[in-house]
Amino acid sequence: MKLIGVVDTTFSRIDMGAAAIDELKNCGTGFKVIRRTVPGMKDLPVAAKKLIEEDKCDIVIALGMPGCKPVDKTCAHEASTGLIQAQLLTNHHIIEVFVHEDEAPIGKELAQLMEKRSREHAINAYNMLFRPEVLVKNAGKGLRQGYEDVGSIKEK
Amino acid sequence: MKLIGVVDTTFSRIDMGAAAIDELKNCGTGFKVIRRTVPGMKDLPVAAKKLIEEDKCDIVIALGMPGCKPVDKTCAHEASTGLIQAQLLTNHHIIEVFVHEDEAPIGKELAQLMEKRSREHAINAYNMLFRPEVLVKNAGKGLRQGYEDVGSIKEK
Amino acid sequence: MKLIGVVDTTFSRIDMGAAAIDELKNCGTGFKVIRRTVPGMKDLPVAAKKLIEEDKCDIVIALGMPGCKPVDKTCAHEASTGLIQAQLLTNHHIIEVFVHEDEAPIGKELAQLMEKRSREHAINAYNMLFRPEVLVKNAGKGLRQGYEDVGSIKEK
Amino acid sequence: MKLIGVVDTTFSRIDMGAAAIDELKNCGTGFKVIRRTVPGMKDLPVAAKKLIEEDKCDIVIALGMPGCKPVDKTCAHEASTGLIQAQLLTNHHIIEVFVHEDEAPIGKELAQLMEKRSREHAINAYNMLFRPEVLVKNAGKGLRQGYEDVGSIKEK
Amino acid sequence: MKLIGVVDTTFSRIDMGAAAIDELKNCGTGFKVIRRTVPGMKDLPVAAKKLIEEDKCDIVIALGMPGCKPVDKTCAHEASTGLIQAQLLTNHHIIEVFVHEDEAPIGKELAQLMEKRSREHAINAYNMLFRPEVLVKNAGKGLRQGYEDVGSIKEK
Repeated sequence: MKLIGVVDTTFSRIDMGAAAIDELKNCGTGFKVIRRTVPGMKDLPVAAKKLIEEDKCDIVIALGMPGCKPVDKTCAHEASTGLIQAQLLTNHHIIEVFVHEDEAPIGKELAQLMEKRSREHAINAYNMLFRPEVLVKNAGKGLRQGYEDVGSIKEK
Repeated sequence: MKLIGVVDTTFSRIDMGAAAIDELKNCGTGFKVIRRTVPGMKDLPVAAKKLIEEDKCDIVIALGMPGCKPVDKTCAHEASTGLIQAQLLTNHHIIEVFVHEDEAPIGKELAQLMEKRSREHAINAYNMLFRPEVLVKNAGKGLRQGYEDVGSIKEK
Repeated sequence: MKLIGVVDTTFSRIDMGAAAIDELKNCGTGFKVIRRTVPGMKDLPVAAKKLIEEDKCDIVIALGMPGCKPVDKTCAHEASTGLIQAQLLTNHHIIEVFVHEDEAPIGKELAQLMEKRSREHAINAYNMLFRPEVLVKNAGKGLRQGYEDVGSIKEK
Repeated sequence: MKLIGVVDTTFSRIDMGAAAIDELKNCGTGFKVIRRTVPGMKDLPVAAKKLIEEDKCDIVIALGMPGCKPVDKTCAHEASTGLIQAQLLTNHHIIEVFVHEDEAPIGKELAQLMEKRSREHAINAYNMLFRPEVLVKNAGKGLRQGYEDVGSIKEK
Repeated sequence: MKLIGVVDTTFSRIDMGAAAIDELKNCGTGFKVIRRTVPGMKDLPVAAKKLIEEDKCDIVIALGMPGCKPVDKTCAHEASTGLIQAQLLTNHHIIEVFVHEDEAPIGKELAQLMEKRSREHAINAYNMLFRPEVLVKNAGKGLRQGYEDVGSIKEK
């Protein structure tokens, strides 16, 4: 039985963690989910590291919604840097799922983008854990999460 | 008995540490507070780490007020990065409470924002330690500290 | 028998990993390749570190294609920082091969640049492992990967 | 007997280390000073860490003068980041004293600012080591080093 | 017998490593040089760390020439950050010698600047290892490498 950690924030404007967990259930079996929620993005790195080291998760999905202001962009950068450090200190993958509040008009469109990206990265996490060969098969395919895939480009 | 560390700065223009400590007392019992003050934001990361490793605090609240100048923004970024590193090195949460001096007109308005954010993050720290299920319940609710909550957005 | 790790992304728009592996085979013998693919650039650092520490690779080639948007530039910076950290934590070289999507018009030109840089850095990796004296001989020669070499400048 | 490390640079345009050491002597007794000088700001972090780990200093004062050019600002950011890391790796405070060359007109005014900030942070270092309660008493008082203190703001 | 590591790049447009080594020979005796060359700046940090940890160098000189493009400035920042980390992880100095390609017109002038800075920092490395008191004597003297020294400023 594998363990998948899911950690999201109270700052976000949709329940990204719930979307990820729901999608994981569609992916298959053989795992349990452990969920945490923290106030903001900058609390994600240590929460993810604790899920790996204390709760023995095999992989973690860390979800957040950086706000519109310049200071929020800086926060997102700090959080991302911390998530990479947490991975290096644990030798475990943490799939970062960030949707910037200004990626789409605030409302239905943004909510759908957040939902879709959360779900598609949940599938990535599942595949990294159970079917890594699917990722190798998709190398260079121009895949995107939340948006349409842009596809490969050709040399000729 | 849990221990909550509180560290703030002499650079700040209100006593943010006192506000946080006062609010913690309203939250409940079962903990003691250990307080430190350092000159500026960049002294916060190691002070917080010492509170965790030397004073055995279970969680730390680190409060600061970045100034208005570009160099102050850089300092805030460095301090935030350090606070995330301190968390990763200790596997303990450190709740960062920063109010930028230019978030509100200097005077009563800024002071109230600083007071309010300090208090609301004190509640977050208390909940993370004693009632983590409250955070999970609030996942994606668009909570803010110091300002009004912006709330969730809907997909339909 | 040496081990060379190759890790690339599903975000990229050509199969950079395949290009690197094909070129390695042209370089010589005495090594095996272990390949991984991850969703995006920020997943590369820990994947490279795991190739070194868990799969015992002697060197790793990490390939990615940062997108055009400002947020993609930030991601590339975070990934690069993480790749340097992964090297420092393992005392092994990780050759970063990034081609920014806006370095050339999207289409044949970009694809060729990505292919060429992937191949030329594969040769660098091979030389670092088997013929480090080739690099010393080329110190200060203004070598470039993917573009024409610019050459040395003279003091007189 | 406590040990206070002082490290400054040959890049700086006044002898900041000498100013700090002179002021420390005014503060009181019970400590010895160990002094180092390095070429530039980016050499400060490891020099400070060596003072703590090899020379057993209890606290370090690290002084530098970032130049006027954009590249100098980047250097200052890198040095500050390194000084915070050095603190986190040693659990000791390192008081950073940076005066940017463009904070005041080059000449008497800049020299006086550098002298004053070096001295005032020397007092901070002394207090952190011997009288931490002085810092707590000054929490939120809007203290500045080199400039006039700006003071607290009121909520009413 | 001390060991001085020298590492430079094939990206650079003059052989900076050779210049540094030649100057070291003018400085005195009592040391041997170990030389490495890597493709680019971002390969310098781990190369320097390996020189210290695997080859037992007492100090390392790391030389590079960041290019003109914005992405090159980011690379330089990442490399510098990594070089500081490498120092903190080893408690050894690594003297960074970077000349930005746009510091002087490409040609004779740039080549001379690169040569001069490489040589002057080689002297710094020698002094840090064998004559640290020379650096203390020059604290605050406004020394520059490659350019004319700007000198001290006076308070009166």
